[in-house]
Amino acid sequence: MQPYQMLEQRFARINDVEGALGILNWDNDTMMPAGAAGQRAGQVATLSVIAHELLTAPEMPELLSRAGAEADGRDPWRAANLAEMRRLHAHASAVPADLVEAASRAASHCERAWRGARAENDFEGLLPLLREVLERQRDIAAVKGEALGLAPYDALLDQFDPGNRQALIDPVFAELRAGLPGLLGAVMEHQSRLPAPLPLEGPFPTAMQKALAERLMLALGFDPGRGRLDVSTHPFCGGATDDVRITTRYDEADFAGALMGVLHETGHALYEQGRPHDWLAQPAGRARGMTMHESQSLLIEMQACRSRDFVTWLAPLLRQAFGAAGPAWEPDNLYRRLTRVAPGFIRVDADEVTYPAHVLVRYDLETRLIAGTLDLSDLPEAFDAGIAGLLGIVAPDDRRGCLQDIHWPAGLWGYFPTYTLGAITAAQLFDAACVHEPALPGCLSRGDFAPLLRWLRPRVHERGSSATTSEIVREATGRPLSATTYQRHLRRRYLGEA
Amino acid sequence: MQPYQMLEQRFARINDVEGALGILNWDNDTMMPAGAAGQRAGQVATLSVIAHELLTAPEMPELLSRAGAEADGRDPWRAANLAEMRRLHAHASAVPADLVEAASRAASHCERAWRGARAENDFEGLLPLLREVLERQRDIAAVKGEALGLAPYDALLDQFDPGNRQALIDPVFAELRAGLPGLLGAVMEHQSRLPAPLPLEGPFPTAMQKALAERLMLALGFDPGRGRLDVSTHPFCGGATDDVRITTRYDEADFAGALMGVLHETGHALYEQGRPHDWLAQPAGRARGMTMHESQSLLIEMQACRSRDFVTWLAPLLRQAFGAAGPAWEPDNLYRRLTRVAPGFIRVDADEVTYPAHVLVRYDLETRLIAGTLDLSDLPEAFDAGIAGLLGIVAPDDRRGCLQDIHWPAGLWGYFPTYTLGAITAAQLFDAACVHEPALPGCLSRGDFAPLLRWLRPRVHERGSSATTSEIVREATGRPLSATTYQRHLRRRYLGEA
Repeated sequence: MQPYQMLEQRFARINDVEGALGILNWDNDTMMPAGAAGQRAGQVATLSVIAHELLTAPEMPELLSRAGAEADGRDPWRAANLAEMRRLHAHASAVPADLVEAASRAASHCERAWRGARAENDFEGLLPLLREVLERQRDIAAVKGEALGLAPYDALLDQFDPGNRQALIDPVFAELRAGLPGLLGAVMEHQSRLPAPLPLEGPFPTAMQKALAERLMLALGFDPGRGRLDVSTHPFCGGATDDVRITTRYDEADFAGALMGVLHETGHALYEQGRPHDWLAQPAGRARGMTMHESQSLLIEMQACRSRDFVTWLAPLLRQAFGAAGPAWEPDNLYRRLTRVAPGFIRVDADEVTYPAHVLVRYDLETRLIAGTLDLSDLPEAFDAGIAGLLGIVAPDDRRGCLQDIHWPAGLWGYFPTYTLGAITAAQLFDAACVHEPALPGCLSRGDFAPLLRWLRPRVHERGSSATTSEIVREATGRPLSATTYQRHLRRRYLGEA
Repeated sequence: MQPYQMLEQRFARINDVEGALGILNWDNDTMMPAGAAGQRAGQVATLSVIAHELLTAPEMPELLSRAGAEADGRDPWRAANLAEMRRLHAHASAVPADLVEAASRAASHCERAWRGARAENDFEGLLPLLREVLERQRDIAAVKGEALGLAPYDALLDQFDPGNRQALIDPVFAELRAGLPGLLGAVMEHQSRLPAPLPLEGPFPTAMQKALAERLMLALGFDPGRGRLDVSTHPFCGGATDDVRITTRYDEADFAGALMGVLHETGHALYEQGRPHDWLAQPAGRARGMTMHESQSLLIEMQACRSRDFVTWLAPLLRQAFGAAGPAWEPDNLYRRLTRVAPGFIRVDADEVTYPAHVLVRYDLETRLIAGTLDLSDLPEAFDAGIAGLLGIVAPDDRRGCLQDIHWPAGLWGYFPTYTLGAITAAQLFDAACVHEPALPGCLSRGDFAPLLRWLRPRVHERGSSATTSEIVREATGRPLSATTYQRHLRRRYLGEA
């Protein structure tokens, strides 16, 4: 067998182990009895170690090197696949086992302590554990940076968003940052002149919410033969190849959270279900990274499904599902509710206009913490100052400030920027789709997502990891990523500009 | 690290992989979308290969040999654990990889073809594929027999029921066989003098059936913190350590099937949940084998829950669950329904009295097929003759004869006897429990299973695989396994003997 074939076999095996992990993790959050937690943690740890061992086995460097010398390496998918294999191997083998272990232990301790520290607003108590997490992440950034020829923060970023670099993000975020306070002021002023949204009276039975969510998933193009919808405390899109499992949580007093959550996760799911069929088990067939993934969820949730067009179609479905009637259930009022802007402290509750502020602050802080130009003990003050500077509000405590997110305690450094890069990418892709398919917005007003999916499939989903995120965006939209289209989208939706 | 410790680590890892497989297989039958079947088969195959590789790694023989020489090997649990490790290793390493592969492929083909062949009553069409399965099983029996120092059929048996031997089974089954036709005649005669059972009028809503099933599971001692109940086409008990998942299927026209099925699977689950806490991840902590496992399900379903005592407690629960009333719902009538005897062709539908006939015939035939003293082409005739000889009925076709079970097509040879050995063991254990705890039957009439579980835990569940099935039975009941107690149980229940 040729070295390249041996690598394909090995990565197919890794894909199987990772698929098993995807199902175990889904089960953990949806089905598992509480008493199984200890054993499940062991199963997940063992399978993770097995996948890591397959990826970093002693024969891998020679296989990867010999595979590159094979004659048929000029097939572009095959070349991309080999490049991805090398990238994955470089990431996995760069970090010595004791550092993997130390970082994992630090994150596990800190994440557990964070739940209590957040509840008790105790940043000082968490500080030593969080410092340990940060220091191990800085170690990882250093060794991965060395191995990959990247700056430390870029090495962390590359784990979640391959090919992305601080130098690419900074100008885009600078553009956003410059425009945000002015935009927000104008939006609040504009909104104050609109009628206040009427309340929607519940209760909204879970069974009705679920039936409606499943109907919308089908309309969006979700394939129920290769996925399902369940309930978990924290919604996610997970599962395995050909088995995409999304979750939501229902609140019988407010259907909008579950509904918009399902639409968001369905965007992720459409990406997963649309990956290139012939490369599903190989690195080149994977989703490109977190920016592109978030762009797909936000394209569906924010660009398509909070549009006036979509709400026109949604309104009668809501009235039918909940037996409701009256002016509160007319598209105008529903649209005003779904596009309401209100600066707040909590990132996950933020609207489309203020969300970037939360990310800009975190990105600024984590780059400085990794670079060592900000000390962790100064984080609360710097965090509050950042939010105050962009949103004009001051958090009364760290619970609603730097303690609110799980990412840093859990060792996810270099992840935050992908949320807002995803939003920007979503706007640029959706705009290009509407230019290419002018009938698209009209189709949304009839619940017809086929033109949108038809546009996305070959340009995003089916490209998998065969090109970089930048290449995919440029080839799909005709230009490199910038905040311009996103900002125009916000001005159109929230200021009524043409 | 000492060799024994290294082995414990390795078997804990194997246990994790097998736990992951248990959850994946549960998910496959309960939750998985149909389109994921191909990918799931790949995941399961990959994890199975990984578990096999861990068990048969080149360093294993030396580790197993050196571990035996360690000084603290006289701890009985540790010695039992090492013995089990050796047995598992011997089984796994006895069969060359190409034979494993050929047997697995043959079974997979034959099992698929069997579904059609059964529907179309086409034994001739299945014959070549079934012959391939049988020949590969005979090959496995030969090489395992050689490696383990066992006769060929015993080597197959030992896979499902460690330590069991044809020489142990034959006298027990001979006793059963000799008594069965006479017993059945007497039972049918006795039954004909009882009032015919009154029908129970449905429908029985699935939600009510499920709520009642879960209530009964709790009463039996099932720990819902370490397990759950779901729906599948074929009921089973599976899952993983501390995560025991049982299934049933509901029929709104007849609640008894799901109900008795849940009680049966709960018996399996209680065994799994009661395994020795300190040895859960090790071979010595596993359930002892299929005979002991089936004894636990049948002890709950047949001995305890089809008893007049239990039905006394059950009757008002049924009336309440289904809003029913009248003489059909009195304990007398319910008991007559639950203990109705009727010779039939289908093993899985058989009652307690006639079930052994189905097993005796299959055991006789499969031992002869493995020995080569019966040719597969003569199977249908021999099968029908066997059933006719014991039950006095002649199957009109092979669909209701030798084609009815999945076991032989699926490569499960040496499995059938454990069903009836389980029934015999259940009777002997339950009898001993009632002798030891005379209050036990009275407790069942109040839904109190605590005395039964208290008796079983140390004598069966917590023994795991630290002793042989024979030792566990002898120490728990004071005598070796024989059909005597089982036959007396049948005469008491079905002939009204004292």
